[in-house]
Amino acid sequence: MSRKPFRRPVAWCCILAFSLINARAQTDPLPSWNDTGPKKAIIAFVGKVTKNGTPDFVPIDERIATFDNDGTLWVEQPMYVQLAFVLDRVRQLAPAHPGWATTQPFEGVLDGNVKAVAATGEKGLMQLVAATHSGMTVEQFQKTVTDWLATARHPRFKHPYDECIYQPMLELLSYLRTNGFKTYIVSGGGIEFMRPWTKEAYGVPPEQVVGSSIKTKFILVDGKPDLLRLSEINFIDDKEGKPIAINQFIGRRPIAAFGNSDGDQPMLEWTASGSGPRLLLLVHHTDAEREYSYDRESSFGKLDKALDEANARGWVVVDMKKDWNRIFRFDK
Amino acid sequence: MSRKPFRRPVAWCCILAFSLINARAQTDPLPSWNDTGPKKAIIAFVGKVTKNGTPDFVPIDERIATFDNDGTLWVEQPMYVQLAFVLDRVRQLAPAHPGWATTQPFEGVLDGNVKAVAATGEKGLMQLVAATHSGMTVEQFQKTVTDWLATARHPRFKHPYDECIYQPMLELLSYLRTNGFKTYIVSGGGIEFMRPWTKEAYGVPPEQVVGSSIKTKFILVDGKPDLLRLSEINFIDDKEGKPIAINQFIGRRPIAAFGNSDGDQPMLEWTASGSGPRLLLLVHHTDAEREYSYDRESSFGKLDKALDEANARGWVVVDMKKDWNRIFRFDK
Repeated sequence: MSRKPFRRPVAWCCILAFSLINARAQTDPLPSWNDTGPKKAIIAFVGKVTKNGTPDFVPIDERIATFDNDGTLWVEQPMYVQLAFVLDRVRQLAPAHPGWATTQPFEGVLDGNVKAVAATGEKGLMQLVAATHSGMTVEQFQKTVTDWLATARHPRFKHPYDECIYQPMLELLSYLRTNGFKTYIVSGGGIEFMRPWTKEAYGVPPEQVVGSSIKTKFILVDGKPDLLRLSEINFIDDKEGKPIAINQFIGRRPIAAFGNSDGDQPMLEWTASGSGPRLLLLVHHTDAEREYSYDRESSFGKLDKALDEANARGWVVVDMKKDWNRIFRFDK
Repeated sequence: MSRKPFRRPVAWCCILAFSLINARAQTDPLPSWNDTGPKKAIIAFVGKVTKNGTPDFVPIDERIATFDNDGTLWVEQPMYVQLAFVLDRVRQLAPAHPGWATTQPFEGVLDGNVKAVAATGEKGLMQLVAATHSGMTVEQFQKTVTDWLATARHPRFKHPYDECIYQPMLELLSYLRTNGFKTYIVSGGGIEFMRPWTKEAYGVPPEQVVGSSIKTKFILVDGKPDLLRLSEINFIDDKEGKPIAINQFIGRRPIAAFGNSDGDQPMLEWTASGSGPRLLLLVHHTDAEREYSYDRESSFGKLDKALDEANARGWVVVDMKKDWNRIFRFDK
């Protein structure tokens, strides 16, 4: 056989591949980001670490990116979503617990008396978590979360909570994955509270979700093994806990980390201190009109010392109002 | 342009792709396995879960396989490799600790008096672990492991420990990955003791290694963040700890699990009890000539109750002598 018929398809394939690559490069991977500093910094970073043959090139295996969840990927005002879940669950479970009507912190939750609940402190919070998060198997708890998410609505946006997620961050997650990154969630929120829905919402599978947890116990029910959730904290994945958990779960130092509060500061510091190119980014909530405006004084997602450090070290700070042309997918 | 030039490359591509698929199907993916029951069971299981459009089909995302390490992937006789590391490290560090010569359990290690070491019980073991595994950063510890592996040799096989790994299991890991499985190690051994070398030895990256751990602390050294290893147990990934850790790290129930001892029994039980097709396999060490022969009475990798359960439930039991035609890569 002459060589010609072989060479022709190769040529066609090359042209086709080149056209596809070219078409791709021309499509904006971050359309909800304005062409301001943060977008430029992200694209420059990704371009750098994916350019083979340069000193900044990072092999695919080491392209680890970690994302905080509350306030970084989804809304955390007027309160953490998981806290809304706790309050709803106490109300739902109350008929089976008549004593709660006269016992704090449950009484406060049922009466909407935030002050009385707050007065019970950490002990009260633990009682609420125990009453709503333990005493069932892992699968039963996940079903409760899924059922709750299907009906609960954000008080202001009137959408399910798992739709109150930031469109620009979804584009960023997807852009990083397209460029060979493995994207992880590293959140102070409960690991089993997130796993039922992160794959669908963010494209992040359960094994790439790291979070706070309570202890579980291996049990046999009618000879069938299961994991029972106990009312004992296993790990709090916040502040210094984040780098500890990243090392525990991932075993590699990320090259990019994304957060929005002081709780994320050690994660960003730890990520920053590795060698080679790094991307550190904080979402600053500056848009009271389209979302919320808060930072140094907020009860949820306080951004104070981390903002100072970001400014001092030149980390990327997203000014939501200025840098994002769209907040939620449901925005017009 | 006529359609012809476009159609020709497509035809060529199809022929090429078909030839490749065909060539692949004809190559034995498990050449070190004899054509006995275990190999047939593995191939039947993989065929079943990867056949799209059938009730047994399992989507790629859910193809999770977990492997014990000691005695399942690498040799665990005459003692756990990590114990050999501990003993070597005590000897290496002894000159800096003159008190050890007259203090148990160190004295026993230095004198080779196994009985005296054993007499110090769990407390003594913890002292040995603390002296050799804590007080340094995670990266420093990993370097110690890497350096040790580079020079230590298995007393009988005279090869580095990370070459004393079972060739049939390497083929199995690779065969599963080729078929879309994510392969995890879930070991009673130390997570940071394994991570430095599992990628090269088994193709399993750090984030897919689950193991026992000690607590770490986030510290700043000259302003640079690091993780210091403390002399406090965080988690023992053995027996009931295995399903607990699988849920914690992976968040999914595996569909295939591989072990060799009673320590793996709860992992196999938990894997078995999910719905849909399952593969449960135990390696039975029956080959004193090429490796070791041990089960119900062994101090390392005791296989007693799990063997009974395997026989009762029809789990696959590999008879090393009968089912494997090659043990190590370095075998002729």
